[in-house]
Amino acid sequence: MVETEVECCRIISEDVEDAVVLEGSPELGLIGNIIGWLLVEELNMKQIGHIDSRDFPPIAVLYKGMALNPFRIYSSDGIVLFLSDFPIPPTITYDMANVIVDWMDINNSKELITFNSIVVGQKTNGVTGAANSKDGLKRLEDIEVPILPFGNVNGLSGTLLTRTTTKNIQASCLFAEVLNQYPDPRAAASVVNVLNRMLNIDVNAEPLIKEAEEIEARLKELAKHVQGEAESPIYM
Amino acid sequence: MVETEVECCRIISEDVEDAVVLEGSPELGLIGNIIGWLLVEELNMKQIGHIDSRDFPPIAVLYKGMALNPFRIYSSDGIVLFLSDFPIPPTITYDMANVIVDWMDINNSKELITFNSIVVGQKTNGVTGAANSKDGLKRLEDIEVPILPFGNVNGLSGTLLTRTTTKNIQASCLFAEVLNQYPDPRAAASVVNVLNRMLNIDVNAEPLIKEAEEIEARLKELAKHVQGEAESPIYM
Amino acid sequence: MVETEVECCRIISEDVEDAVVLEGSPELGLIGNIIGWLLVEELNMKQIGHIDSRDFPPIAVLYKGMALNPFRIYSSDGIVLFLSDFPIPPTITYDMANVIVDWMDINNSKELITFNSIVVGQKTNGVTGAANSKDGLKRLEDIEVPILPFGNVNGLSGTLLTRTTTKNIQASCLFAEVLNQYPDPRAAASVVNVLNRMLNIDVNAEPLIKEAEEIEARLKELAKHVQGEAESPIYM
Amino acid sequence: MVETEVECCRIISEDVEDAVVLEGSPELGLIGNIIGWLLVEELNMKQIGHIDSRDFPPIAVLYKGMALNPFRIYSSDGIVLFLSDFPIPPTITYDMANVIVDWMDINNSKELITFNSIVVGQKTNGVTGAANSKDGLKRLEDIEVPILPFGNVNGLSGTLLTRTTTKNIQASCLFAEVLNQYPDPRAAASVVNVLNRMLNIDVNAEPLIKEAEEIEARLKELAKHVQGEAESPIYM
Amino acid sequence: MVETEVECCRIISEDVEDAVVLEGSPELGLIGNIIGWLLVEELNMKQIGHIDSRDFPPIAVLYKGMALNPFRIYSSDGIVLFLSDFPIPPTITYDMANVIVDWMDINNSKELITFNSIVVGQKTNGVTGAANSKDGLKRLEDIEVPILPFGNVNGLSGTLLTRTTTKNIQASCLFAEVLNQYPDPRAAASVVNVLNRMLNIDVNAEPLIKEAEEIEARLKELAKHVQGEAESPIYM
Repeated sequence: MVETEVECCRIISEDVEDAVVLEGSPELGLIGNIIGWLLVEELNMKQIGHIDSRDFPPIAVLYKGMALNPFRIYSSDGIVLFLSDFPIPPTITYDMANVIVDWMDINNSKELITFNSIVVGQKTNGVTGAANSKDGLKRLEDIEVPILPFGNVNGLSGTLLTRTTTKNIQASCLFAEVLNQYPDPRAAASVVNVLNRMLNIDVNAEPLIKEAEEIEARLKELAKHVQGEAESPIYM
Repeated sequence: MVETEVECCRIISEDVEDAVVLEGSPELGLIGNIIGWLLVEELNMKQIGHIDSRDFPPIAVLYKGMALNPFRIYSSDGIVLFLSDFPIPPTITYDMANVIVDWMDINNSKELITFNSIVVGQKTNGVTGAANSKDGLKRLEDIEVPILPFGNVNGLSGTLLTRTTTKNIQASCLFAEVLNQYPDPRAAASVVNVLNRMLNIDVNAEPLIKEAEEIEARLKELAKHVQGEAESPIYM
Repeated sequence: MVETEVECCRIISEDVEDAVVLEGSPELGLIGNIIGWLLVEELNMKQIGHIDSRDFPPIAVLYKGMALNPFRIYSSDGIVLFLSDFPIPPTITYDMANVIVDWMDINNSKELITFNSIVVGQKTNGVTGAANSKDGLKRLEDIEVPILPFGNVNGLSGTLLTRTTTKNIQASCLFAEVLNQYPDPRAAASVVNVLNRMLNIDVNAEPLIKEAEEIEARLKELAKHVQGEAESPIYM
Repeated sequence: MVETEVECCRIISEDVEDAVVLEGSPELGLIGNIIGWLLVEELNMKQIGHIDSRDFPPIAVLYKGMALNPFRIYSSDGIVLFLSDFPIPPTITYDMANVIVDWMDINNSKELITFNSIVVGQKTNGVTGAANSKDGLKRLEDIEVPILPFGNVNGLSGTLLTRTTTKNIQASCLFAEVLNQYPDPRAAASVVNVLNRMLNIDVNAEPLIKEAEEIEARLKELAKHVQGEAESPIYM
Repeated sequence: MVETEVECCRIISEDVEDAVVLEGSPELGLIGNIIGWLLVEELNMKQIGHIDSRDFPPIAVLYKGMALNPFRIYSSDGIVLFLSDFPIPPTITYDMANVIVDWMDINNSKELITFNSIVVGQKTNGVTGAANSKDGLKRLEDIEVPILPFGNVNGLSGTLLTRTTTKNIQASCLFAEVLNQYPDPRAAASVVNVLNRMLNIDVNAEPLIKEAEEIEARLKELAKHVQGEAESPIYM
């Protein structure tokens, strides 16, 4: 049991040596969070700890009626997942990144992979990547992930990419294309397929595609209604 | 007399060993607060202490002309009640939860039951529950309380559900259905009936039903007026 | 000379043993502040100190051209008055109340009387009271002051009522009826008359009645103008 | 070289014993700041130090291309001037006043004169005064400066008037009449004439009158334009 | 390797003795940032460190897919560049300036040159300068850079100009003319030409001119579209 403490937050977790660490928090499109929940289900990940902070929003997350910490740590077969159910407040992002990187340092983690998104005008469902080292970029190119050349990486993802560098831990970030801030499970599914190639695993992204189809069907239905209303005469 | 102190608040209270601890603070519908005041009256609970914090809103609460602390602790027959008359500011919720859980730990409290609400479009007056352990969920199912499977539990309720877990204290939360943020004594009464089954007590929720009927009568009267006005011609 | 210090404010004042302590700060209707200035004039009170805080608004108060601290302490014939010329910021109300109560504790003060107001739709010029003990309530009833049964007491008044309880100091609050937030010297005069009965003193509230008549005359004049303007044709 | 330090700001300055200290910061009408710059020019004052604070706005002030600290201390013939080029944030006014008063205490300063303004509906170009002692008021009356009887003195001026009292340092404040928040060199000139009488000096306020005439000419020109536009037909 | 630490930020960097230090952060027109990136490319500058702060915005900056700290330090042939990719928050500008000046003090830096802008109504593409010493002003005049006589210098530039004075380090600031807050590579190019004269270097500003031409072409195109739309009839 490791307790890594900084000023405003701490990790309470079991040790897992030599793991690949994934981080998923709900940025635009909720990509990281959607991927995280899928991995928990599909890889049967076991909760091994949580991050605790007086600066988190005061919530418990219900999962089948069970109250969970809103930022949890899961583990399964050499993969450790840091999963957040709320957007990390910018004021604590730095300390959050530090406790995670310290945990990785103590536990000899192999690498970090974090998930994020870029907003596009038109989607191609492509996934792009970035890394904190030349080796990391080469590896992405080897599995034919196009590099995102310029831009700012926000949030916990961004800070993790720079803080890992300080400890010589390799880190990469996969970006889904999203149109706006709403949950986009289809975009998340594209990232899962790339993650499978990166880690030589075989997570089934089909549940996300189904979820996307349901959302899209509801939106089409809604659009018809709105159009219908617009076409009918208006009485006041 | 126990003084449990953390950075921003402290409990000043008598000790009560092996109690069932209830927590009621005014979230949406003021459910916890309404239930708390009913229990004080119906169970003849005696005030044994209060929580003191420089970060509370600066108010005294009048009860029959007597000025009281806005967050009080009551006790009666093995039941201890933490009752707040103001919504807990998010910035101190974490510390509030910690002093309460520390008090429970020191006093060997048996379990925590907290009250909250979910906003629905149409009310069925049903009560749902959640817990921080499988045993807790089973117990709710045994007395036929439907489980609230997913969602976020806000406020002191939510933080208590996760902080109790850290100290291995069993905790559950009962959710009333509310339509909006206004006081809903009828919804609170539904929760009291479930609480009676959980604790094998017999609190009379009738005063809440009467209060609800009075509110509802006033609202109907108001609705008539508004309708009447809308039907009469308007002169300007 | 006593210096009672807490984190954010301190009292710099002469000692006065066994005094009745009054507190007047400008809540709705400025009741406490208006009463305070009257008492200073009518009882020829002498300034014995002030409260100093880096969190006060940065102002000096002019009185006949002389610059004064905005929160002063006065004394005369066994009565000590804490008089504020600005609304106490909520963030320092708790510490303010504590330094005052500590001063009272050290100086064996007999009791605290604080002034506040309740907003009503229609005024009866009645004064109501509340207290922090049963003895205090009985005393109010003995001089036929109706008890204000329920409600929240805001500001320094409210916090003083609960903080005095902690030190076993008797405290009561007198509430004037006000219609809104504007200065109401007539309402303040009603409270002065009750205070006379409570303390067996004979402060002349006539100056406040005159001030009220002047304000009311100005308002009537203004109302005529507005009505006149509304009746006269409008040229643009 | 004296370094007077408090929590959030410090003075780095040469010592000047037995000086009359003037303080000019830009309140409404920028009176203090305008007077300060005039004195620096007309009295050939030499910069002897500055106040340094992490809570000041991050600016350098250019004077003939030379970058200066935004709060500087000047000296000339027994007069020391504290001159600010930005409004002092209320949160640091208390500490600012304290370091200045401490510096005066250490350097046996004779007195403090601070500048401020009152907003009037119609200007008489009169100057009024206030002081922190009866002697101070008498002196103002002796040179026929009318006393400003009531009101609140805001900002560094106000806090200096009360903080000097604590150290038994005589302080007075001269108030110019202003119509609004805009720079008013003519009002500042009125104050300079009173200051000349107070300190038996002979500062030429003519540059401020010229500056005022230029501003007024520009405003008249602008008014004509606006009127002209209003009279000409409008094409859209 | 030097670690200069103050309360809220620290420099992690290699030592470079006797360097000329340049500072570029994105004020109005992004002048400093645009110049900085050009220098990195044209002078083949090598990253030697970064500034680290929990109060920076939580971002990583991508450069050809590589994640970089948002505030980096570069070096090449006796020139050291502090380059920021985000506007420095005013609350940490003071500490930022201090760590930079401390680093310069420890490393015997020769001088500081910082970049900023002034907003003008009509551009002449002229560059003006200011300095923190008479020698600095003379040097600017010697290379025929007009002096900016009056005004406030905001941001890290301004604070660096005053903090360097405290350590007797010569500092100057070059101001580009900009029309508004948008990136202005043409204005940045003017500054580069002056910098070449100041440091006897030969940085090619042509890439900025090309960038400006591209921006200007896009804006003209856009203007035509808008005009075209305005001229065509509007159907709704």
